[in-house]
Amino acid sequence: MQLYDFKMAPNARRVRIFVAEKRLDIPKIDVDLGSRAQLHEAYLEINPLGEVPALVLDDGTVLTESTAICHYLEEVCPDPPLCGRTPLERAQMMMWDRRVEQHGFAAVAEAFRNSNPFFTDRSVTGPMDFPQIPALAERGKQRFANFLNFMEQRLGETEFVGGVCYGIADITALVTIDFARTIKGRIGENQANLQRWYAAVSRRDSAQA
Amino acid sequence: MQLYDFKMAPNARRVRIFVAEKRLDIPKIDVDLGSRAQLHEAYLEINPLGEVPALVLDDGTVLTESTAICHYLEEVCPDPPLCGRTPLERAQMMMWDRRVEQHGFAAVAEAFRNSNPFFTDRSVTGPMDFPQIPALAERGKQRFANFLNFMEQRLGETEFVGGVCYGIADITALVTIDFARTIKGRIGENQANLQRWYAAVSRRDSAQA
Repeated sequence: MQLYDFKMAPNARRVRIFVAEKRLDIPKIDVDLGSRAQLHEAYLEINPLGEVPALVLDDGTVLTESTAICHYLEEVCPDPPLCGRTPLERAQMMMWDRRVEQHGFAAVAEAFRNSNPFFTDRSVTGPMDFPQIPALAERGKQRFANFLNFMEQRLGETEFVGGVCYGIADITALVTIDFARTIKGRIGENQANLQRWYAAVSRRDSAQA
Repeated sequence: MQLYDFKMAPNARRVRIFVAEKRLDIPKIDVDLGSRAQLHEAYLEINPLGEVPALVLDDGTVLTESTAICHYLEEVCPDPPLCGRTPLERAQMMMWDRRVEQHGFAAVAEAFRNSNPFFTDRSVTGPMDFPQIPALAERGKQRFANFLNFMEQRLGETEFVGGVCYGIADITALVTIDFARTIKGRIGENQANLQRWYAAVSRRDSAQA
């Protein structure tokens, strides 16, 4: 297997952390998003949507979409389980992973891509250009603040985002919180549950990935 | 089990079609989004995000997020398989389901909620109000047009969106195409592969759900 990767891309980091937790050693190929290499013909042949990461299997099959890549790795390398251990745990983990994605990760991405000067005319990933929408950047910041409140409440009820065990929902949430630095988003000093959880998941070796 | 549902809600329809394909009989409880019943205290206790659908299990556990609900039903009722039959098929099905969601469904939702008069100040689902962003509606329409081109290409290569078998990615794509009527989005007359696929999936009994 080979992983098309870029160090600063948050979706790529989701997969890197997942791979590190599984103790897998997958060779990485750097796609320099800084020079827009993801839009060069060579990479568009791998992923026509021009998005990183992409996992290439030994027979040449390409998998994209970080969640699909992680679920594939969970199936072929089940230990340690990161997507839940029973049908109900898996459903709850997927539910929380998606809640984090939709209300956290997507909000930060909207805020970042619609305000950072590097993404002028690049507010959407992929080969087509779209101009930035400043109102969407503002909305994303507000939504991220709401997301932190929602997570603070959740983490007052459970040790980890997805339930009793560390898993993919924690990875998405950790990447989201760190990604939010790009929009000056931070966990509040009074958000004690989030602070406790963030310290715990950041301490894991995989967080360096 | 009980399913909190609303006939006109596209995410709820994704689950209804999935349930119909599985030939399951799950009692439905109507949440009248027309009168914003999803934001009443009674429903927010079921889903604090104020989103439909929600599946309540016999022990009272609540599952939300249509994809998580469908994957749960796939596990407890594996036949007919709708999420792929092998690890690789499942990964590819999930990859295509997410591509349809991100580039199709989300684009239509952005266009619809940011232009329809019913959603003034309600451009985002959930308890918090956000004003509409007209530029986002326009961007959504353009992205949906790109999505149709992408699907036309895909369906020239495979019979179904997710691969050789009908599955969850087809359901999300069908719901997306029908949802796009709200923004006057239509498959082009020259998009023959999409037309062929749409006729086939719409002919299934489950499409009435």
